[in-house]
Amino acid sequence: MLLGPGPSPVPARVLRALSAPLLGHLDPEFLAIMNEIQQKLRSVFLTSNQLTIPVSGTGSAGMEACFVNFVDPGDRVVICIAGVFGERMRDVAERCGAQVTAVETAWGTVIDVQQVVETVRKHKPKLAAIVHGETSTGVHQEIKSLGNYLAGTETLLLVDCVTSLGGMPVRVDDWKIDIAYSGTQKCLSAPPGLSPITVSEKAREVMRKKKKKSQSWYLDLNLVEKYWGEDRTYHHTAPVSMEYALLEALNVILEEGLEARWKRHRDNHLALARGLAHIGLQLPVAPHHRLWSLNAVSVPEGINEAGVRRQLLRNFGIEIGGGLGPLKGKIWRVGLMGHGSSRPNVLLFLAALEKTLLDHGYRFSRSGAAQAAIESQGPSDPAP
Amino acid sequence: MLLGPGPSPVPARVLRALSAPLLGHLDPEFLAIMNEIQQKLRSVFLTSNQLTIPVSGTGSAGMEACFVNFVDPGDRVVICIAGVFGERMRDVAERCGAQVTAVETAWGTVIDVQQVVETVRKHKPKLAAIVHGETSTGVHQEIKSLGNYLAGTETLLLVDCVTSLGGMPVRVDDWKIDIAYSGTQKCLSAPPGLSPITVSEKAREVMRKKKKKSQSWYLDLNLVEKYWGEDRTYHHTAPVSMEYALLEALNVILEEGLEARWKRHRDNHLALARGLAHIGLQLPVAPHHRLWSLNAVSVPEGINEAGVRRQLLRNFGIEIGGGLGPLKGKIWRVGLMGHGSSRPNVLLFLAALEKTLLDHGYRFSRSGAAQAAIESQGPSDPAP
Repeated sequence: MLLGPGPSPVPARVLRALSAPLLGHLDPEFLAIMNEIQQKLRSVFLTSNQLTIPVSGTGSAGMEACFVNFVDPGDRVVICIAGVFGERMRDVAERCGAQVTAVETAWGTVIDVQQVVETVRKHKPKLAAIVHGETSTGVHQEIKSLGNYLAGTETLLLVDCVTSLGGMPVRVDDWKIDIAYSGTQKCLSAPPGLSPITVSEKAREVMRKKKKKSQSWYLDLNLVEKYWGEDRTYHHTAPVSMEYALLEALNVILEEGLEARWKRHRDNHLALARGLAHIGLQLPVAPHHRLWSLNAVSVPEGINEAGVRRQLLRNFGIEIGGGLGPLKGKIWRVGLMGHGSSRPNVLLFLAALEKTLLDHGYRFSRSGAAQAAIESQGPSDPAP
Repeated sequence: MLLGPGPSPVPARVLRALSAPLLGHLDPEFLAIMNEIQQKLRSVFLTSNQLTIPVSGTGSAGMEACFVNFVDPGDRVVICIAGVFGERMRDVAERCGAQVTAVETAWGTVIDVQQVVETVRKHKPKLAAIVHGETSTGVHQEIKSLGNYLAGTETLLLVDCVTSLGGMPVRVDDWKIDIAYSGTQKCLSAPPGLSPITVSEKAREVMRKKKKKSQSWYLDLNLVEKYWGEDRTYHHTAPVSMEYALLEALNVILEEGLEARWKRHRDNHLALARGLAHIGLQLPVAPHHRLWSLNAVSVPEGINEAGVRRQLLRNFGIEIGGGLGPLKGKIWRVGLMGHGSSRPNVLLFLAALEKTLLDHGYRFSRSGAAQAAIESQGPSDPAP
């Protein structure tokens, strides 16, 4: 049971789609599938952006595509950093030769949007990048106010939606996001291997006016968009089976409906939080900044962090994640993503964790985490 | 029926492996699968190179990984060009800031190794790159003599084995190849989405001494090798399902045996060539320079090249490829790759092509291509 930071469980329908016999990557039947994928990705990103496609690599390839197509050496960019994926964006931007100004804050807290606005005002960067759902900390970052400000400037807004898309509201057009990327293996519930991205017209203009060719041929969107668009010019061979899986995963999402899916993620997140609180465990992120899809849980004093994870995997077949960087050994990361965000999984996890912590000698204030999660619905948070 | 330049047909065993439930990408069971993949890739590449892994992208991502990890801006590289994939290597190298010296020859012919040797002697490049099986032309390039020469120099030998690995002899250690990349969707008979690469110790030294960080974070082998090696340091999320498929495809290959697999590809290639010759069709590549996995066939005067392909697909469900670049409209490309290289496929294709050409008004010298292919075994070519 994959309850870590991803990959997440994949529905049987999607696994079946994965194993369909292959079509040629320029076969008319496959081209129709490509069109359907683009159209349904637009529905999930809530955008009308023409350039909305899956990049042929995992989420980090999507991140890289979002820099190498826009940034020339010497360009100023602002990167917001409060975890591993913010750090990774800085590294990727620097490899493009960007002059990076970082807006940093402690891991586990949110970026102060006002500080970003002031940094943009001062440096007038080509691009400002921020993580919507920081998988390394479980923090959910507000985006809309930053989008509103940047829309009146020349700066592009680049947002990492890897862990949020399909599990929490991501409204690309409404929030005025220019460039966003995600991954298939989190709340979209397909296997890892593709990175959906979307690019606004404002950003496409910047892409077309870029001085140097993209330093990556593989991720050059000027070439890739000709294959996904009307021209159908051969670029690289699309990962055909993965595209089948993505399409079926998008079908599952749109059949459930985005609003219902978000509500399911929120309800299960709140149930998990109630159960954990009941037995005295702490969630280090402030309640209104918590990701619904990835829950950071503080490791109690004196408990062997990795030992608990090993035992959960061995005794219950449950995988959760540990902390990274400064949070290593201090938190567990519990993913309730896509198909994996279900009430049974919450109960199974809480029961297994309680038993495992008991075995590790943890003294509970009260027992019955699973019961607490299921019994009361708790006060409702404001709607997304 | 995929008889084009790839993807090729995938055995049911491999499709079933693809659809297995997902493991976490750091799960001990998955780490064991990763070890097995590396070991079996070494067997298929005929190498003892430690760094032998699948890159998480299609063949072109593998090509890019083989440049961005070795080439610094300003480095001299020699690229041999006789088709689309040689051209692509030049483009990729230039995006790394390389000073490219091209050794070019007409599409459909082989590169003169002596000319490469002289160019290397003159320019002393960091790297010389050549395509073993040029998918755009159906030409098979001899590699061993170039490897022998370069082994005595500081220049690294980089070889594109996308269309040859698993279908024709590729002997990385014996031929003294320093860097090679392939793709899963040709003679390895897995779906597209991974690019196996192998890197010699000589090349790893160059990689470690590279002045600048690789311009690609996603393809940075210094980071990727830590995930595939002992450290297991998280880099990007491996495309888990595709790794399952690759492992099963490698199992299929090693169960058949490399020698038997090469012989099967050669026999079916020769049968196809006999059948085509029988009805008066020409193969533009000289007999001893033909790829066994991809057959270029000259389009007869006055025949509608694309019309024939469309009709083959519509009436017989057979996909073949057309020509690219200067060969557009002039050749068909018939792939007999991996699982797709079978006597029944040769007969089906010849029968379908003969019927289709008749419908297009082609006047045959003789009929019965399929019969001719099956009846005589023809003179044996020298062993590989």
